[in-house]
Amino acid sequence: MLKNGPKQAISDNAIGHKVPRTERGRRTMRAILDAAAMEFGANGFGETSIVSITQRAKVALGSFYTYFDSKEEVFRALVKDMSERVKEQAAAAMTGRENALEKERTALSAFIEFSREHKEIYRIIDEAEFADPQSYREHYQGTAERIFMRLQKGADNGELSTQLTEAHAWAIMGMNVFLGLRYGIWSEEMTASEVANIAHGILSDGIIKK
Amino acid sequence: MLKNGPKQAISDNAIGHKVPRTERGRRTMRAILDAAAMEFGANGFGETSIVSITQRAKVALGSFYTYFDSKEEVFRALVKDMSERVKEQAAAAMTGRENALEKERTALSAFIEFSREHKEIYRIIDEAEFADPQSYREHYQGTAERIFMRLQKGADNGELSTQLTEAHAWAIMGMNVFLGLRYGIWSEEMTASEVANIAHGILSDGIIKK
Repeated sequence: MLKNGPKQAISDNAIGHKVPRTERGRRTMRAILDAAAMEFGANGFGETSIVSITQRAKVALGSFYTYFDSKEEVFRALVKDMSERVKEQAAAAMTGRENALEKERTALSAFIEFSREHKEIYRIIDEAEFADPQSYREHYQGTAERIFMRLQKGADNGELSTQLTEAHAWAIMGMNVFLGLRYGIWSEEMTASEVANIAHGILSDGIIKK
Repeated sequence: MLKNGPKQAISDNAIGHKVPRTERGRRTMRAILDAAAMEFGANGFGETSIVSITQRAKVALGSFYTYFDSKEEVFRALVKDMSERVKEQAAAAMTGRENALEKERTALSAFIEFSREHKEIYRIIDEAEFADPQSYREHYQGTAERIFMRLQKGADNGELSTQLTEAHAWAIMGMNVFLGLRYGIWSEEMTASEVANIAHGILSDGIIKK
């Protein structure tokens, strides 16, 4: 983005769709993404149309095409958006005073809360494996990288084992995704923090009898 | 199934499709399931037809209908079959002399080997979330139950913590699924046993610096 360029209402971003630069444009974009989440989540990629999204969003078809060229593009933007929101939700839940393992617990608890409020997230991310494999891969690679960076920080400051690898981050992400599916989406028989405590216990002590 | 009924070539089973009771019938069924795995794995549920399966299997269309009523039914049978084979692969890899944690390591290593030889498994199980949600759920519930039973056995004989719950089994399953995706399907930069050792280390000691 040009630092001193002329003021623009929209600009391209790295993932293809246009980025609104006015408050009104941002609200329209948000309405489209929220409606897309509901439509793709309820009906799947194949059964969702651009018109069904704009009708639900209560925006004109022309406004849709101001920002997106196709259904594929809005789907890609949505996966990216959900990925970002999960990340922001975790970041917002951190107090900054947690130790390394407590950070993982906070991130998982925030993820489970988010999943409960946005149950469509699993369907959308999971469908990306078929509808948009690159977004699917980027979502998980990005999430694993974030976890791995936190693990490295924890190792650097002496809290965590110095032997941790990218594979440890993938193992933790897998725990989180499946705990979220089982206890965020399928049932709410445990609180988010109870679920996060289970993972925390494993990461803290393993499961051997002490 | 009637205990003393007349000898039948085929019978119904619990998941709907017919079960062959002759060796030749079993070979035909196996050929159909193997071909279905290739077709669904390569082209997805929507793009796969019964004819594409029978052509690949080199069996007559009539033979298909001897065992299955529809594409949905062969897909359901395939998910069940893959689920069973993963289970059998793990069971076959066990020596019976492992301790409780070594059992989990063996199961994961066997799963990663299986995934590498049958890379279509992820696509098929993952697509079941959309094409056949009940099979999807049963696959993961069944897998988690098996893990949980092993954990309980380990707790009973004093090896594992007595605090383990179904959620621990889901956490372990999640680790396995994501390690399998990353190091079984996406790349083979680590051996199956190296990957299994990562999970084993987490379950054994956690990730805190000792």
